[in-house]
Amino acid sequence: MGNKYVFSFREGDGKNKKLLGGKGANLCEMTQIGLNVPPGFVISTEACLAYLESPDGNLPKGLMDEVKVQIKKMEKATGKGFGDPNNPLLVSVRSGSALSMPGMMDTILNLGLNSKTLPGLIKQTGNERFGYDAYRRFVQLFGKVAMGISDEPFDKVLEAAKHRAKAKSDVDLKSSDLKEIAKGFLEVVKEQKSKPFPEDVWEQLATAVKAVFGSWMGKRAVDYRREFKITLDQANGTACNIVAMVFGNMGNDSATGVGFTRDPATGENKMFGEYLVNAQGEDVVAGIRTPKPIQAMGKEMPKIYRQLESLRDKLENHYREIQDFEFTIEKGTLYCLQTRNGKMNATSMVRTSVEMVKQGLLTKEEALLRINPAHLEQLLFPCLDPKFKAEPLAQGLPASPGAASGKCVFDADRAETVGRSGEKVILVREETKPEDIHGFFASQGILTSRGGKTSHAAVVARGMGKPCVAGAEGISVDVAHRQAQIGDKIIHEGDVITIDGGTGYVYLGEIPTVEPTFSRELNTLLSWADEKARLGVFANADTPDAAKKAREYGATGIGLCRTERMFNAPDRLPIVVDMILADTPEKRQEALNRLLPIQRSDFKGILKAMAPYPVTIRLLDPPMHEFLPLESEIEQQLKELRELRETVSATQGTLESLKLVDPAILSGYLKKPEGLQIRLAKLDISVVDEAIAKRELMLQRARALRETNPMLGHRGVRLGITLPQIYTMQIRGILEATAECLKEGAKNVHPEIMVPQVASVTELKWVKKYVDELQKEIEAKYKVTLKFKYGTMIEVVRACVTADELATVAEFFSFGTNDLTQATFSFSREDAENKFLPFYQENGLVPKNPFESLDVNGVGALMKIGVDKGRKARKDLKIGICGEHGGDPASIQLCDQVGLDYVSCSGPRVPIARLAAAHAKMATKAYDKSL
Amino acid sequence: MGNKYVFSFREGDGKNKKLLGGKGANLCEMTQIGLNVPPGFVISTEACLAYLESPDGNLPKGLMDEVKVQIKKMEKATGKGFGDPNNPLLVSVRSGSALSMPGMMDTILNLGLNSKTLPGLIKQTGNERFGYDAYRRFVQLFGKVAMGISDEPFDKVLEAAKHRAKAKSDVDLKSSDLKEIAKGFLEVVKEQKSKPFPEDVWEQLATAVKAVFGSWMGKRAVDYRREFKITLDQANGTACNIVAMVFGNMGNDSATGVGFTRDPATGENKMFGEYLVNAQGEDVVAGIRTPKPIQAMGKEMPKIYRQLESLRDKLENHYREIQDFEFTIEKGTLYCLQTRNGKMNATSMVRTSVEMVKQGLLTKEEALLRINPAHLEQLLFPCLDPKFKAEPLAQGLPASPGAASGKCVFDADRAETVGRSGEKVILVREETKPEDIHGFFASQGILTSRGGKTSHAAVVARGMGKPCVAGAEGISVDVAHRQAQIGDKIIHEGDVITIDGGTGYVYLGEIPTVEPTFSRELNTLLSWADEKARLGVFANADTPDAAKKAREYGATGIGLCRTERMFNAPDRLPIVVDMILADTPEKRQEALNRLLPIQRSDFKGILKAMAPYPVTIRLLDPPMHEFLPLESEIEQQLKELRELRETVSATQGTLESLKLVDPAILSGYLKKPEGLQIRLAKLDISVVDEAIAKRELMLQRARALRETNPMLGHRGVRLGITLPQIYTMQIRGILEATAECLKEGAKNVHPEIMVPQVASVTELKWVKKYVDELQKEIEAKYKVTLKFKYGTMIEVVRACVTADELATVAEFFSFGTNDLTQATFSFSREDAENKFLPFYQENGLVPKNPFESLDVNGVGALMKIGVDKGRKARKDLKIGICGEHGGDPASIQLCDQVGLDYVSCSGPRVPIARLAAAHAKMATKAYDKSL
Repeated sequence: MGNKYVFSFREGDGKNKKLLGGKGANLCEMTQIGLNVPPGFVISTEACLAYLESPDGNLPKGLMDEVKVQIKKMEKATGKGFGDPNNPLLVSVRSGSALSMPGMMDTILNLGLNSKTLPGLIKQTGNERFGYDAYRRFVQLFGKVAMGISDEPFDKVLEAAKHRAKAKSDVDLKSSDLKEIAKGFLEVVKEQKSKPFPEDVWEQLATAVKAVFGSWMGKRAVDYRREFKITLDQANGTACNIVAMVFGNMGNDSATGVGFTRDPATGENKMFGEYLVNAQGEDVVAGIRTPKPIQAMGKEMPKIYRQLESLRDKLENHYREIQDFEFTIEKGTLYCLQTRNGKMNATSMVRTSVEMVKQGLLTKEEALLRINPAHLEQLLFPCLDPKFKAEPLAQGLPASPGAASGKCVFDADRAETVGRSGEKVILVREETKPEDIHGFFASQGILTSRGGKTSHAAVVARGMGKPCVAGAEGISVDVAHRQAQIGDKIIHEGDVITIDGGTGYVYLGEIPTVEPTFSRELNTLLSWADEKARLGVFANADTPDAAKKAREYGATGIGLCRTERMFNAPDRLPIVVDMILADTPEKRQEALNRLLPIQRSDFKGILKAMAPYPVTIRLLDPPMHEFLPLESEIEQQLKELRELRETVSATQGTLESLKLVDPAILSGYLKKPEGLQIRLAKLDISVVDEAIAKRELMLQRARALRETNPMLGHRGVRLGITLPQIYTMQIRGILEATAECLKEGAKNVHPEIMVPQVASVTELKWVKKYVDELQKEIEAKYKVTLKFKYGTMIEVVRACVTADELATVAEFFSFGTNDLTQATFSFSREDAENKFLPFYQENGLVPKNPFESLDVNGVGALMKIGVDKGRKARKDLKIGICGEHGGDPASIQLCDQVGLDYVSCSGPRVPIARLAAAHAKMATKAYDKSL
Repeated sequence: MGNKYVFSFREGDGKNKKLLGGKGANLCEMTQIGLNVPPGFVISTEACLAYLESPDGNLPKGLMDEVKVQIKKMEKATGKGFGDPNNPLLVSVRSGSALSMPGMMDTILNLGLNSKTLPGLIKQTGNERFGYDAYRRFVQLFGKVAMGISDEPFDKVLEAAKHRAKAKSDVDLKSSDLKEIAKGFLEVVKEQKSKPFPEDVWEQLATAVKAVFGSWMGKRAVDYRREFKITLDQANGTACNIVAMVFGNMGNDSATGVGFTRDPATGENKMFGEYLVNAQGEDVVAGIRTPKPIQAMGKEMPKIYRQLESLRDKLENHYREIQDFEFTIEKGTLYCLQTRNGKMNATSMVRTSVEMVKQGLLTKEEALLRINPAHLEQLLFPCLDPKFKAEPLAQGLPASPGAASGKCVFDADRAETVGRSGEKVILVREETKPEDIHGFFASQGILTSRGGKTSHAAVVARGMGKPCVAGAEGISVDVAHRQAQIGDKIIHEGDVITIDGGTGYVYLGEIPTVEPTFSRELNTLLSWADEKARLGVFANADTPDAAKKAREYGATGIGLCRTERMFNAPDRLPIVVDMILADTPEKRQEALNRLLPIQRSDFKGILKAMAPYPVTIRLLDPPMHEFLPLESEIEQQLKELRELRETVSATQGTLESLKLVDPAILSGYLKKPEGLQIRLAKLDISVVDEAIAKRELMLQRARALRETNPMLGHRGVRLGITLPQIYTMQIRGILEATAECLKEGAKNVHPEIMVPQVASVTELKWVKKYVDELQKEIEAKYKVTLKFKYGTMIEVVRACVTADELATVAEFFSFGTNDLTQATFSFSREDAENKFLPFYQENGLVPKNPFESLDVNGVGALMKIGVDKGRKARKDLKIGICGEHGGDPASIQLCDQVGLDYVSCSGPRVPIARLAAAHAKMATKAYDKSL
């Protein structure tokens, strides 16, 4: 055919991995950019295919002639001779296909050794032991790879020699032992193959090339390709790389080492690495000698050190990325053996990105693109010190990122008591409810044994930015005995545990954590991201404090302010319960009237904190029963209260029984100086009766409110329409807060009223009537003109499909993709994550957990319908997303593509989203160009 | 303007309702087709508008001249004279606009009476009392309508006269009394208006016309138009109809009556009606004389009767619809006063449709279109005898049509016991569960106090074709005391009640019902419907018996065979429970192996019953916990069993306690001849312990299976994938049944395997692997080639959106629009119908209940996406619907429009669907033509 099969590193096309394999192309590229790579050449994948197809098992005609030409060149470059007894040229023979298939194919080192050249190697290195060791290794490897002899007979010989020499390991073997072993190995070959080990170096080489080519069809490689679904289109055949061996153990002008072009831990622009004089790579690995820091070479080998510095510059200038490289110095000559992109932590990635831009090495776009947004998480939450190794006690779902340690407590009241005394606590519960909220405030983190990533514990913890591990099923909590069982271990109240909300692991004892840093470089990088991004990044925040934090994270608006969060605060929940227990509209209004000033003041704080940015306030979403304790808990309380009543009337009992009574009722007693041993006789029985009556009413109401499928039940706008007093109170709170801001000179506040769970434009119009009436009333009362937007969540499928109708009334849309995903898949998130979704993920039934990363074909398609229909009806419709997906980089990409205006996520994820938004824009731009 | 304002009935355009009003146009049409309408004319709406616009309140110039011309013609036609004292022409003056506005505008009768003409009328009728009565009525009516005098002063005069005459009612007044009254009335007018009642008949007429025109802008009429949103475009101004009065009381050659062109009760092609000789219409209404059947006229007035027969033919030939007409015979002349389409029941509608086609009066299309499909329901279920009036005791949701009476029982076991003894029973429960199924079989109907139209009770009852009233919230059931409270009434076991599943009413006592009839005419009509329809109509059926019935109803396939129904049968549920309680795959398989032959035999029966039509079998859909009793019930059972254990060990107690023990365990005891008074001493305590242990396990399993949103939980294909043994058992059952049919010579069986709850093509592929493997195995075992289809429910939103992907695997789609509607709206049907949907319907937030009639803009749009994407990927994709919407005529229309191949509904609704499918096709055709 006249094909050219062999390419020296100086001529091979560094981009043509298909022809030269990944490793071969890489060696060509390194050589051609001026790195001193040991000389060598590549035999192409075409040669491999031709060999595999040849009926007689011969290498393609002329191939070995080409090889000889190349070997000549290598001899010239190294001053060594292939088969030369004095100064032998040894080579490595390595496979390398277009795709990396680690460990799947074969490598032979030190080819060219035989009984004649071995003395030459020993003379050159001055190290007889090394020579024999290299020789016996070569014989075994060649015997195995190229001649098909199993390890077993070689191992027998080695074991016998070790036994004789009383050597525990290979390191204990002396030069003479190794000499014996090499002799034994040669005999093994002769025995097994009925022919001697090839002395002829050319025969060695040709045989090795055939073996490398043949390994492409070896069982291991074929299995690997099937397993990883590698098609012929991606990789067909392996190339064969032949490289001159260089030795770092040829005297004190020789050395071996590894380097990073910058410090991978800090990102500092300073070469980082280690080396050993007169040593081989294995010596570093074996750990017998301690390598020196690379800077020491400045004194020890100043000339080489300068070459290394220059190598570093060449690497960074060419690859425009931090490089992790290996080098060997042979008799004063520096060889670069290998280089690849350096693996770094987030801190160093950020710093190097910024510095490389300042050096002109990278454009801002490139600097942004080299950082995976998700990696920023390391910088934004405390995490366990990676240097510290510990065995986890249990594992749950990573429900809210960050790590925290503290003493276990098993109920919210204890959390508050212990927490207020200055101790760090972790609240451990089977599951949490709104009534536990004071315990959240007092705790470092939350651990639950039931519930998924959208359980109450998870959602509230994320909102507060506290670590949470949820649904750690291995743990069973025994509140009564203030302990929990994990496997056969019992954890008592006060035992210290550590939870890692980033991994879901739970540890016994305190594990040191690393605090988050928000460096100058990160700020710089994120400001570049903001320049590139099209999507705005908002935060979800429910309090004035959270709003301030959101601004620190760089949010340019609040995309979701959940008014029910305000309901859950410990001073408010009792009012909400009164509202639910009210049996007339008047009583309900009375409770709402008490909530109004609280909500109004919250709204004011948030609006002022965010000015001039918008604050999107969602009207009440959850169903009423979520604000009541579980029926079983009320039943339990009733049981205990009735028992307490017996106790009280008998004037016996301890304070312990008291905690069953409503804390508000008991507070008078608890503050008395007698302390813990007050006798219950002092407790008027009518107080207990009152508590019983209230519980009975709560139980009755909880039963009436019970729903079969609460996720699809009486909540959101459905509640707002059928119990209009709640929404009118909330709308009044928002508009009065706005009016007061204006009165107080805060002219730049931008509230947006958002209605949840909307399925039809009729609902949106219905609530709009409340808004219009209240606006008129409040504008007249305050003598101001209110400016605000009125819009809707898009979280119901029907809202997507009828978005054109909704947009006639709504001025903005905000996708609630958690609910939308549930409705699109008919998956209840809580049930799915507990029951079948893990199986689905493991078996590829879903590509990812659709609650963590938006489902492109289903939910994404509906979003596209919603955006297109919405904008058709209202050109300037503002559209965002406020579900948790808003902080997921892949989902942000989708949001950019379908044309959203902003994403909104929890505060600490804002920086991640800002970077992801820049990535998304660049990807969308690239995608658009490709059309 | 020279406008023509007045049109005689001979010249007016019968189609121009805008100009002549509905009544006027109708009188013109009747006259012009040759009916002997009393002569008269119409003053047009244009005249009305001109009058209303005139600044001086005069009638348009020349109008009264035109009127005079017409009156002349009337005089000629009747031989009477307007104002003629001997033989006076009297007229009625009536309003009539383009749209009917019943009771909103005014009418004056007997205009033309005055002191001169009154004696003439008396002479002509020979009835002095009638004359004075007519006169005093005319004076009051004219006084009120044309002169604006209130009724009060007239009533005073009347009351005084009655008092004097000691008359209880008007009928008791004698001629002399009426004469006095007329005199008094004339004085009232003079007093009130300071001028006498007009004696001049022309003045009477002009004043009356003005009054009729003026009534168009009267408060009543204006309010009515606003309330019913009648626009000027629809009706502008009223016409005024002036018709000669004719009198049926002018002797024995006069009469009055009403007729139907056919019998409205049976549809028989025979005139139907009643008449009274020498009488007026009022006499019929007053009920003093009993009218004779119209056929009697054949002997009494044979000539007139022949005229009536000819009138009837003219009416039907012209209107091509059964007519309901009024007539008067004045001195041997037959006048037709009014005619309109006759109101008929479903039976007569069907019969007349068929017969009119056979007569050539109607085309088949017209015959089909004149029947509202929903009205056929009357023919298909028993319903309460409409003649029987009763006050309902309570109302619930009409959950399954039909009416039934029986003795109340409050649990399924009692239903079975009492039902088997031959009594008719109604099962009354708070709600039902699968374990109650034996009670359903034994009952005439089901009444529940909780749950909506998709509650277990409703769905199962519909499936069985038994009447059901669900969610009758006024009823509280007390099972322990075997009674229920409705308001302050207590219903005890054994009290007879009647439920009407078509209206949701519950009655005390037995109310007679009318049995359904499936007449020859209905079959004929439906066969025409089948010719016209594009959509096929399948039935939902779960047993061989139901399949046979479905064929009788005309189903050409089974669109939904619910395999879980088979699980619920009383002999099978215990096996299913064993399967759920199994703690190893082996034990689970053991239980499934017991279910396999049962399912296989069912499938065989259904397949054979339906051959050559397809049977679509849905694999298991509901979540596992639905097959277990409620947790609270198990807890209660446990409590009672533990008490029983005490009792048993003390060898005390009665049989009553025994029912708490598993019936299977106790069955040995219950069969013993000692009867009811077996002493529990004979019950081995280990048997009770066994029952306790089983309950404990059930409780544990029920808790583990508990879900937050079961509708979106671990069910359908999710269950089929994670617990593959259930689906493989079912698929094996289907394929082995098919193989056995083939072996037995039933070559024409067509099973279709349908997977529920599919959200992704990955799921469909996963289950397809089971199918492929089993097919191979069973084909080899039975040595047959199995032909069947594999397809999917489309009930998950994501399935609609990714229908193109699904269609690469699925050979058919079947829309499950109940679940799809729930997911599209994010409405849980059960919660919605209990909590907010009634409010939504009442307030127009949804146009209809979307669970009863498909939501066009939301669900319909998704269906369209699903159909279009599915057919794009697979041209011959078969698509149907198997939700309850499949039996709703409006939904069927939508199904036809989006291009489905068939609808499937419960058996008794099949005829309704067949007719609706024909309507849909005709409407779609008309719609397509209009494009």
